[in-house]
Amino acid sequence: MRNPVHDRARLQPPAPARIGDRVEDVGTPALLVDLDAFDQNVARMQALADAAGVALRPHAKAHKSVAIAQRQIAAGAVGICCQKLSEAYPFAAAGIARIHISNEFVGADKLAMAVELARHVDLSVCVDDLRQVAAIAAAATTGGVRITVLAEADVGQGRCGVDSPEALSRLADAIGAAPSLRFGGLQAYHGGAQHLAHWTQRRDAARRAAEQAGAYVAHLRARGIACPVVTGGGSGTAEFDCESGVYTEIQPGSYVFLDGHYGASEWPGRFQPRHGLFLSTTVMSTARAGVAVCDAGLKSLAVDSGLPRLWSGPGSQWLRYVAANDEHGVLQVLDQDGQSLLGSKLWLVPGHCDPTANLRAQYVCCRDGHVAELWDIAARGLSC
Amino acid sequence: MRNPVHDRARLQPPAPARIGDRVEDVGTPALLVDLDAFDQNVARMQALADAAGVALRPHAKAHKSVAIAQRQIAAGAVGICCQKLSEAYPFAAAGIARIHISNEFVGADKLAMAVELARHVDLSVCVDDLRQVAAIAAAATTGGVRITVLAEADVGQGRCGVDSPEALSRLADAIGAAPSLRFGGLQAYHGGAQHLAHWTQRRDAARRAAEQAGAYVAHLRARGIACPVVTGGGSGTAEFDCESGVYTEIQPGSYVFLDGHYGASEWPGRFQPRHGLFLSTTVMSTARAGVAVCDAGLKSLAVDSGLPRLWSGPGSQWLRYVAANDEHGVLQVLDQDGQSLLGSKLWLVPGHCDPTANLRAQYVCCRDGHVAELWDIAARGLSC
Repeated sequence: MRNPVHDRARLQPPAPARIGDRVEDVGTPALLVDLDAFDQNVARMQALADAAGVALRPHAKAHKSVAIAQRQIAAGAVGICCQKLSEAYPFAAAGIARIHISNEFVGADKLAMAVELARHVDLSVCVDDLRQVAAIAAAATTGGVRITVLAEADVGQGRCGVDSPEALSRLADAIGAAPSLRFGGLQAYHGGAQHLAHWTQRRDAARRAAEQAGAYVAHLRARGIACPVVTGGGSGTAEFDCESGVYTEIQPGSYVFLDGHYGASEWPGRFQPRHGLFLSTTVMSTARAGVAVCDAGLKSLAVDSGLPRLWSGPGSQWLRYVAANDEHGVLQVLDQDGQSLLGSKLWLVPGHCDPTANLRAQYVCCRDGHVAELWDIAARGLSC
Repeated sequence: MRNPVHDRARLQPPAPARIGDRVEDVGTPALLVDLDAFDQNVARMQALADAAGVALRPHAKAHKSVAIAQRQIAAGAVGICCQKLSEAYPFAAAGIARIHISNEFVGADKLAMAVELARHVDLSVCVDDLRQVAAIAAAATTGGVRITVLAEADVGQGRCGVDSPEALSRLADAIGAAPSLRFGGLQAYHGGAQHLAHWTQRRDAARRAAEQAGAYVAHLRARGIACPVVTGGGSGTAEFDCESGVYTEIQPGSYVFLDGHYGASEWPGRFQPRHGLFLSTTVMSTARAGVAVCDAGLKSLAVDSGLPRLWSGPGSQWLRYVAANDEHGVLQVLDQDGQSLLGSKLWLVPGHCDPTANLRAQYVCCRDGHVAELWDIAARGLSC
């Protein structure tokens, strides 16, 4: 006997994709990974780091996926970065053994997470204040763990990190003096430099950041303090960070995907990424002349770094994505009648990959026109 | 015997809040609901609709929470709206019996969802194209269900919906002629009118929209077609929609929370909402003079309708949220030394509530300074 109430309680949206499906049959909006481009991006960044003798510790905030972290490590990465402690949990649970929290944190809940993670993985964290050092040292002592702590210095970003050699020395001294801590070295990250459009601008900003980082390292060395790790850099400046002679480790994230913002930059140098991340969308209304409306809006892609770009699909050359509402993308139809587009599937390049991935549950990974793998975005929404 | 690998595999981030916790102990960033304000907003909107004899069908896209939908229905709402078919599933599974999809859709995957939902709930959907009517009719016939279909007309939004009485008539005729469909009436929604800052602007835009909607209804009536439902309106225009004499049903969503964008509007009229949604955040870096950095950025709150506003917390009167990075909020410190703020917990008002709620897994609901309830955001990320 069927029980309608019981049946109803088990209702779940159907999986938008199954392995083996044709890409054009995947329910939209879906976050698609072009595996050929992804593989090439992973390999190229690893080769860049290897050639320079610099460790690659990719930033998992960009993708939030255990499957991707495992592939990065299989290719040669030494571990991963996370930006938040809670974000590190699915990676730790999956056996990723070396995790760097490239960020500061304050509060009892955060300290408890750091201690728990340190019991299971080789954890390092950042500080830029003596009060953070004292709190982490006390929590580590109580928890019976030893935590590696890097001091963060600002090298142009103007966000976190101390801005004087004296403040840096005080941090290093305090870390070194705490039996429950281990001084891990220096974090020197310049986020703004990543996003300069021109290659020469990025090169110059990266060189200035490396120069500042080098001066901080030298200051510590003169006081008898070695920096086992100098970490920083990102997708936009990796080639310059690698050749700096200062960074022992780079932490790029977006390079696996490339997004609309990065895609608009110049890449004439030794790292040339390909677009590997797309959002597929369906045109679901063409009722008004000159307008087509698709099913991918604010809740499917992040618009903080610009609206998405049309990549492919019927009519994509005469469409422009001009406005994102919650669940609608408004497309301007240039020079043509839009009526024929109803039901068309288009591929968009999201403006910013990190917060776009954070909106979705799964990557639909495609090769040769078919769905080859499905990767959970396990750290979606883990911002504590 | 402990098994470290097994222990590690079970690692999960700790729950950021438990019922009974003091609000100040909740791990940040957390999405907080002030239950007193929420209850008042729910009651006031219901009273407004009741007084006008208009049905209230709140839009669940704003909150994506079964617990909230149940409270809205307990207060007198006739059902809910969803913007996407997949979004409707958790509500249907929880027993919400009347669901209106206030949107068009195209594609086999979407049709399959509509048929499945129609087996379990009183489902209505929107169309603005004869091809959608034909597709839904065929799917409903094959699936052995009958689906209520509303024709959408554009009344100023310029997005979806037909823009002529003739096109509307053709839709109504086609729906009426399909044995597997039921003509439900007219959807006439003007999103842009909701967001005008001045009360008189909203009043005038809402009156124009209602006038257009009324003309469409009259056109159909003259052809012998009755509109059982005329649905539209939103939080910003609800009081005008209610008094229009045209709308039989309003579909506001954000009124339960009020966000930064709506909060900046004038509310001198018969509906006066209170701020009920906040994001709590901790200052985790004060290393640089004039800057404090908090742990709530792009991945914790949506910035499409503006940066968040400081609501409360130590120093909030001399702080300004000036930039959102992925996991950082950059606060400008005015007229004071920011050092003392390290570890301070602040409450922010997100600029746009709908996409902010879509980023989070749970509402932490507070009353009298303590956590009173935890509500899952069950439809988070369901955009298919």
